[in-house]
Amino acid sequence: MSVCHHRGVDYLLDQAPGAPIRSGIPEHGRIPKYYAVKAHVSLLIEELGEGGMLPTERDLAVRYEVSRETVRQALRELLLEGRLARQGRGTVVAGPKLEQPLSLASYTEGVRRQGRTPGRHLIGLEKFPCPTALAAETGVEQGEPVWHLERVLLADDDRVGLESTYVSVARVPDLDTEFDPDSSFYAYLRDRLGIAFGDADERIETVLATPREALLIGTPPALPMLLLHRISRDASGRPLERVRTLFRGDRFSFTAHLGARG
Amino acid sequence: MSVCHHRGVDYLLDQAPGAPIRSGIPEHGRIPKYYAVKAHVSLLIEELGEGGMLPTERDLAVRYEVSRETVRQALRELLLEGRLARQGRGTVVAGPKLEQPLSLASYTEGVRRQGRTPGRHLIGLEKFPCPTALAAETGVEQGEPVWHLERVLLADDDRVGLESTYVSVARVPDLDTEFDPDSSFYAYLRDRLGIAFGDADERIETVLATPREALLIGTPPALPMLLLHRISRDASGRPLERVRTLFRGDRFSFTAHLGARG
Repeated sequence: MSVCHHRGVDYLLDQAPGAPIRSGIPEHGRIPKYYAVKAHVSLLIEELGEGGMLPTERDLAVRYEVSRETVRQALRELLLEGRLARQGRGTVVAGPKLEQPLSLASYTEGVRRQGRTPGRHLIGLEKFPCPTALAAETGVEQGEPVWHLERVLLADDDRVGLESTYVSVARVPDLDTEFDPDSSFYAYLRDRLGIAFGDADERIETVLATPREALLIGTPPALPMLLLHRISRDASGRPLERVRTLFRGDRFSFTAHLGARG
Repeated sequence: MSVCHHRGVDYLLDQAPGAPIRSGIPEHGRIPKYYAVKAHVSLLIEELGEGGMLPTERDLAVRYEVSRETVRQALRELLLEGRLARQGRGTVVAGPKLEQPLSLASYTEGVRRQGRTPGRHLIGLEKFPCPTALAAETGVEQGEPVWHLERVLLADDDRVGLESTYVSVARVPDLDTEFDPDSSFYAYLRDRLGIAFGDADERIETVLATPREALLIGTPPALPMLLLHRISRDASGRPLERVRTLFRGDRFSFTAHLGARG
């Protein structure tokens, strides 16, 4: 079997005849049946191209002479990885993942660069007394009020993420009356309050969506997500906000440019 | 039920009495049973601390009055997320994820900074004619020979990742005889060939481990992984290598520092 992954990283397969088949298939030769189907469907995805409609589970089961459960397992992985997407009752070839540059503080700007329309849907905005762990990160004393702003992130009306922002109420007192939750928080800080973004520390990990998160973003529960933690400071180095953004793992990737080391 | 996630991001739960319970539990009130168990076990993880031994599945099923299958589903997610780890026949509380700074080109350096010992285990080194897609990335003409160096990444003898490096044979002709595969490739380039790392473009996404990858890294198949793509150039801007590194999603996170925007 010749396998060629669509992201162009498994170069060896067709170029080096006789080389061990490297794309996901254990070299001891026992190829899991579902994985063989997944490899075949990967080729089909290449042929169909973005938006192409996949044959039904039943048709694929007949074509590859396996059970429908085996087809389902292969499709489940391809869906989780964002190579396929559900469309109505059918399954179509998904487009490439959105790329969010880590060099930008703003989701809005990242999505616009890909030619998509960013949006945000308010889930909740509330004040609460700042707990210890959050105090240093938001630059307030423990017990002083902080805002928690929670929004679903949209790209072309698709729900693609969920963002929680924690910020000092003393610093941004009129967030509940002045701020349009379907707009960029950084633009608001800059244009209305004259607070300029300075720098930030970020951490990225992969986690599973909780049932609540899956419900809000509209994904299957336990979909692998990319979780971005951010602590940012203003131009004078003063703590500004703590952000926790969950991105659909099947729809997002992050890009970074590494400069020369000192 | 009071839920407090160990990474300190769900601040609201105990601080704001009366606020909706936000940590993973849908607000319509239907709490999936396995998720309630997961929340309880999360508290237990806090109490036990790193290395602490979890009670058996059977004991947990009795304690929370659920089936063993429900306990198993909760533990499966906590294992996938790296909050628990298998140890012999038991299950223990895992340590924090390793943090790999994106500002470093070198895995070796990143792991050393965390006080761990980096290592690499050679899977294969072979020459093959460069395919079109790889030519620009490695700075060779299509059909010219490139190396594919494949290594398992180790931290304190634990297998934590799998790395494929593609580099021009003309540029690094003696890789097969001169290079110790259990050492840093960047150090080799610098010290033996006088090639200095210049800059790189990176992309991070989450993917599922293939059966072969799971076998080589020793993880369950379909574990969410962090996949890092890198295209790097030398100090003169000339293409140097194409790297594909797969990190265990339950063991790694990436960190970045964002400077002020221009």
